[in-house]
Amino acid sequence: MTQHLRTQVAIIGGGPSGLLLGQLLGLQGIDTLILERQTRAHVLSRIRAGVLETGTVDVLRRAGCADRLEREGFIHHGTMISCDDDQFRIDFEALTGQSVTVYGQTEVTRDLYDARDTLGHPTLHEVGDVAIHDVETDTPAVHLTHGGRKVQITCDYVVGCDGYHGVSRQTIPGDKRQEFEKVYPFGWLGVLSETPPVEDELLYASSARGFALCSMRNENLSRYYIQCPAKTTAEAWSDAAFWEELQRRLPQDVAARLITGTTVEKSVAQLRSFVVEPMQWGRLFLCGDAAHIVPPTGAKGLNTAVGDVHYLSDALIQRYADGCTKALEGYSATALARVWKAERFSWWMTSLLHHVPAQSSFDTRMQTAEIAFLRANRAAQTVLAQNYVGLPF
Amino acid sequence: MTQHLRTQVAIIGGGPSGLLLGQLLGLQGIDTLILERQTRAHVLSRIRAGVLETGTVDVLRRAGCADRLEREGFIHHGTMISCDDDQFRIDFEALTGQSVTVYGQTEVTRDLYDARDTLGHPTLHEVGDVAIHDVETDTPAVHLTHGGRKVQITCDYVVGCDGYHGVSRQTIPGDKRQEFEKVYPFGWLGVLSETPPVEDELLYASSARGFALCSMRNENLSRYYIQCPAKTTAEAWSDAAFWEELQRRLPQDVAARLITGTTVEKSVAQLRSFVVEPMQWGRLFLCGDAAHIVPPTGAKGLNTAVGDVHYLSDALIQRYADGCTKALEGYSATALARVWKAERFSWWMTSLLHHVPAQSSFDTRMQTAEIAFLRANRAAQTVLAQNYVGLPF
Repeated sequence: MTQHLRTQVAIIGGGPSGLLLGQLLGLQGIDTLILERQTRAHVLSRIRAGVLETGTVDVLRRAGCADRLEREGFIHHGTMISCDDDQFRIDFEALTGQSVTVYGQTEVTRDLYDARDTLGHPTLHEVGDVAIHDVETDTPAVHLTHGGRKVQITCDYVVGCDGYHGVSRQTIPGDKRQEFEKVYPFGWLGVLSETPPVEDELLYASSARGFALCSMRNENLSRYYIQCPAKTTAEAWSDAAFWEELQRRLPQDVAARLITGTTVEKSVAQLRSFVVEPMQWGRLFLCGDAAHIVPPTGAKGLNTAVGDVHYLSDALIQRYADGCTKALEGYSATALARVWKAERFSWWMTSLLHHVPAQSSFDTRMQTAEIAFLRANRAAQTVLAQNYVGLPF
Repeated sequence: MTQHLRTQVAIIGGGPSGLLLGQLLGLQGIDTLILERQTRAHVLSRIRAGVLETGTVDVLRRAGCADRLEREGFIHHGTMISCDDDQFRIDFEALTGQSVTVYGQTEVTRDLYDARDTLGHPTLHEVGDVAIHDVETDTPAVHLTHGGRKVQITCDYVVGCDGYHGVSRQTIPGDKRQEFEKVYPFGWLGVLSETPPVEDELLYASSARGFALCSMRNENLSRYYIQCPAKTTAEAWSDAAFWEELQRRLPQDVAARLITGTTVEKSVAQLRSFVVEPMQWGRLFLCGDAAHIVPPTGAKGLNTAVGDVHYLSDALIQRYADGCTKALEGYSATALARVWKAERFSWWMTSLLHHVPAQSSFDTRMQTAEIAFLRANRAAQTVLAQNYVGLPF
């Protein structure tokens, strides 16, 4: 027996993009149904980045989901960059008047789920066989299985927030979409460690041995990463080997201060840049990782997704308020203009700080010359800071 | 029979670097002997770039060689950049308070020869078999042949201003120098045309067909370039083919205004980045192309050479004034710090604007995204403008 459901906006994917969109629409009285492949517990177990742009915090505040963030998040007024033993600071506050907030994506997602509970809008977890139909008509539908039953959802719009591996992007005919991709010849090995962070702010460390990043979640929870070969597995790295390699990539005085300890999570992420154009097809719209991936250098992943949700929620709210579809029709172009800027920044920062065995000595000097220029030039620092705190919507 | 000569500073190479150094030293009463492989007429027939940084003009003024430049040169307060049909301006004056001067390198060289004539210091032209000896001792020497005779020159210092193919760099033992190089997979096909320039300022044009540059010497002498495959010869391009390809790479409204005509010079230059470290060895010092090459995008070649000459002339003047060799000993490090910045800028501008068949669609989008960012972001424009008008000495 098939269950029939009706909603205004069907949202595929119950990660932060889908949840935030549901919340922004729900607060304006627009019905959404979120469809998530995993359990809520599984979604909340995923560890992701934790640096929020000013604009991201603004959108979360508008969604009514910023109370805990403002209580528990850490405001960072700058970031550190090092090249071998030389270290300097980019002062976001002085250069842009803005800052970023360190608050884990997992916590953002938890707050959004709590807000959705309060709103009382439905979420189907553990859905399977999701298929999107008829988005080129006025009556799109989503078919899926849930709890052993077939479910058919009719709706006005479908929004794909189902990530890089989701079905939404694939729903756009292959000859109607163009995909842009760069796979970097390295990954990041990341650990979460119940130790005090070595710095008060993030430290992006360039060294001849490769890149390292010192980040954090709170005073007693550090997040450290080291660049690793593309095929590395987390299992291949003992805690001791990780700490030793991290220390060798940090300035000596920082390495000397590093408090090591048991790691509570260890994982490898491949670095990739990816964009699909367009980000909409008929009544289907893509947000976040479903449409684009950035390498994590510069922390633009979640922030870029929030940008998409900002534009799309505004467009849908306008459509339901007065029937005007102009902003909806322009969604892909509007979102992509900002997406490509984030892609450019993430690619630049990744290219600047990582080291690959194949690079020539000239390439290495271009990196060190750019870091030296950045160290001394206020306009170059401003460019970095403006991108890091987030370009305006 | 061998002729014996004595000078304080033997300068190998009678191009603009060597002549400028000779002039700056000569004005302080320091004897120089310039040794040039070609005839003066040949040196003055070489067509090179013609954009002078503010600092370059200052040094030429200090050398007493800026009168004609200030009369006949053209002050440019900005430059144009285009990406397909979209065109925008970088306003040097507004962003940095400085400008550049368009005045051909050939004219700079001519003014420097005239000044040397006035100074009365000697230049040997058409020298051959130049060999540099004993630079690790206090009594270096240069041996050569001139007019069928052997000449042995003893001196205090030897300065290599003899370009990329000169003997000076090779005099540094191979295991004591490190060379950094990038050969770009394209060249520039340039023409000099007795036609009015299409723009009042330079236009750097990016297009899917490749890069083009609209430059000039004066109101009736234009200098145009198009990116071409590395192996192209100038003979392979008819005037008609050149003009047609140039027009296809310019914004439509610019192409429509382009006045074509007979070309008076047509040549191909391979694009290359090159640096040798160190730039000194004992009593041998390198200036300009002998030590480093930049691709021409951004017009840093002559300007970077003038930076070297500025540092080295100051150091030698100090040495002869009070015997202090501190600045001389620091010459390589001082010069290289600025050289690497110019290398970085030239590499960046080259990478931004050229198109190579092997690049991915993602790479192309990184270029267009960077140009779009530059178009809209004042800090990014400031970075470009500061580099273009010249970083401070």
